[in-house]
Amino acid sequence: MTWLDLPADHPFGVAHLPYGAYAPPGDPRTRIGVRVGDAVLDLVGAAVQLEPRLVPMVEGDNLDRLLAAGPVTWAATRGAVTSWLTDPACRPVVEANLTELSAVRLELPFTVADYVDFYSSEHHARNLGRILRPGQPELPPNWLHLPVGYHGRAGTVVVSGTDVVRPSGQRRTPDGDVVFGPTTRLDIEAEVGYVVGMPSELGRPVPLESFDEHVFGVCLVNDWSARDIQGWEYQPLGPFLGKSFATSVSPWITPLAALSEAWVAPPPRDPQPLPYLDDAGAPPYGLDLRLEVRLNGHVVATPPFAQMYWTAAQQLAHLTVNGASLRTGDLFASGTVSGPERDERGSFVELSWNGSEPIVLPDGGTRTFLEDGDEVVITATAPGPDGAVVGLGEVRGRIVPAR
Amino acid sequence: MTWLDLPADHPFGVAHLPYGAYAPPGDPRTRIGVRVGDAVLDLVGAAVQLEPRLVPMVEGDNLDRLLAAGPVTWAATRGAVTSWLTDPACRPVVEANLTELSAVRLELPFTVADYVDFYSSEHHARNLGRILRPGQPELPPNWLHLPVGYHGRAGTVVVSGTDVVRPSGQRRTPDGDVVFGPTTRLDIEAEVGYVVGMPSELGRPVPLESFDEHVFGVCLVNDWSARDIQGWEYQPLGPFLGKSFATSVSPWITPLAALSEAWVAPPPRDPQPLPYLDDAGAPPYGLDLRLEVRLNGHVVATPPFAQMYWTAAQQLAHLTVNGASLRTGDLFASGTVSGPERDERGSFVELSWNGSEPIVLPDGGTRTFLEDGDEVVITATAPGPDGAVVGLGEVRGRIVPAR
Repeated sequence: MTWLDLPADHPFGVAHLPYGAYAPPGDPRTRIGVRVGDAVLDLVGAAVQLEPRLVPMVEGDNLDRLLAAGPVTWAATRGAVTSWLTDPACRPVVEANLTELSAVRLELPFTVADYVDFYSSEHHARNLGRILRPGQPELPPNWLHLPVGYHGRAGTVVVSGTDVVRPSGQRRTPDGDVVFGPTTRLDIEAEVGYVVGMPSELGRPVPLESFDEHVFGVCLVNDWSARDIQGWEYQPLGPFLGKSFATSVSPWITPLAALSEAWVAPPPRDPQPLPYLDDAGAPPYGLDLRLEVRLNGHVVATPPFAQMYWTAAQQLAHLTVNGASLRTGDLFASGTVSGPERDERGSFVELSWNGSEPIVLPDGGTRTFLEDGDEVVITATAPGPDGAVVGLGEVRGRIVPAR
Repeated sequence: MTWLDLPADHPFGVAHLPYGAYAPPGDPRTRIGVRVGDAVLDLVGAAVQLEPRLVPMVEGDNLDRLLAAGPVTWAATRGAVTSWLTDPACRPVVEANLTELSAVRLELPFTVADYVDFYSSEHHARNLGRILRPGQPELPPNWLHLPVGYHGRAGTVVVSGTDVVRPSGQRRTPDGDVVFGPTTRLDIEAEVGYVVGMPSELGRPVPLESFDEHVFGVCLVNDWSARDIQGWEYQPLGPFLGKSFATSVSPWITPLAALSEAWVAPPPRDPQPLPYLDDAGAPPYGLDLRLEVRLNGHVVATPPFAQMYWTAAQQLAHLTVNGASLRTGDLFASGTVSGPERDERGSFVELSWNGSEPIVLPDGGTRTFLEDGDEVVITATAPGPDGAVVGLGEVRGRIVPAR
């Protein structure tokens, strides 16, 4: 029980406690904050008085040092914050270090090292196959054997709230002309991201059972995509400028420890994965997150994450099986989350079936792809302890016209 | 003229002066060094006495601060070092700060931000098309319209001399079975890399004429590739584990200022590039580098860089035309450098024509792809002033068995 005056069903209650980087009013310097309800706790400010031994591990502009400190420190930090919020003796110090969320500036919570994007929703991959390669098999031949993925641009990962400038680039018209200009098919991809804390050694794969030792937590990701640019450029070496202009992440990183009630068994796989990807004997690494995608305030999709074919633990095992090392701050994302139903699709290319079936909005307007001024917000919830809900931080972005 | 006792044709003479990160004997800390002949000059050590105003810009473990300082500081630093090596009055200080190259430990010269690999040799792309997609057009439809590229893994860029563990992964056998194990087609890609110093703003493209304002210098790159892993995984999202296990770079970054005699006109392009890629009115951004690839000491290829279809200035303009920002430490590489002749091909998949035409070595041995224990060294030279030669630092790597 907490001494805080928080509704039991608050999505940022004491069972959650995600971390972010924020600057309080009038102070340009960012620091680690813990979101508690609709306020932000200055972690170092409180620790200095309540748990000084933590300070060296949580100082700095953002989560980088905490991420690098490893699972023992992660547990100690979470344990300390939880005790501060439940022990009335700590109340004066905590309250002195709380700032209203609405008053703070949120920044990118950690320094992104490498960014990898997977493609692990079977429904999404089949939809894309049907849309982009009609008449051919829905899934590429490798899809059921390995979590397909690629490296994206780490330097253009931005925090929620950052405007997205409509990108320009080359595309090929239906007549076969190659033209240059602002994208006409600007899209989203609603995804879940995983943040690596503990690095690994070059040449040493990380088995899927070691997932919890390396991954610190979860965020939401909007992998903005310019479908016309992507369609022209992506063969043979994959997406590049169609994706690299911006990838938005939520400001709050939910630690794995807050998701203890959310783990579920992944769907059955056929064919059976190779041993390094076989999670039959492992803990369940599926996550029962329910995403919600809003366009200008209207819910346009509710993608279910529990049905992802490949889990994050499998993605991590695959990513490192060739000996590739992990660094603190590596971010890997699930790929677009789509369910079997039309209103469960996590991208507009699916929702509008490549523009052929416009979405009708409550105000009577329609959309195929995004227009200038549109704002997209992705949120998600997970089951918490005792019927509580854990709400992942939102990822928000507004489209501004091409320059 | 220098007071140094250096042969006029030394590839690391006073017209060159590349920068690296090194640790002198008995000192674990790295710092910036300038290679002068077969010695390394401690840049901060000399600057403290000869040009103290430079010190804040060149302190630290590696080139990061110098890269971020921008073109005016780059020119001032190079001017200062050149003057020290030509003014006999500076000789005692310089000599006190020189260490024999053979005695130092070389490290990665800068922190790699994002790593992008292009595919800009027409000969290489046509060879790969003929090998991998026989009966289809040699070049993908987009190839002559844009510099095809993709993001690689920045965290596994390693300095020359780092052993390369043979990676394991999934591959599909000719019978169609999907199996796991050490790669059987381990290859190299001999490339030239460009190091970004000055960042750019998100949403603002960098025109090709601004190349010199952002790019600090050049290195050599070996983009190790596991062709069987790559072949199975790369559709539809591009190379991933087939490349991400290691990318080796040379330890010495040659500043663009040392290459003033090496710029040449690129080959004619047909069709004419879109305006943002059209370099007809720009300075010539081709580079007359001659690469040499040695396997276990024997020269197996001499790829000519001057014939690259897309230049680094075009690559940079393309990379940012969608508004993607640059960061200090971004590395972008040319893609495999191959010329029209068989002995000018910069990869073993081309040299051995996908394994069907083994290379015969002077000792009577043959190679298709790399074997454990093989060592590959890539070097390059450029024309310098007054007939001098500028020698880019070597990139060396030895294959060790799979773990």
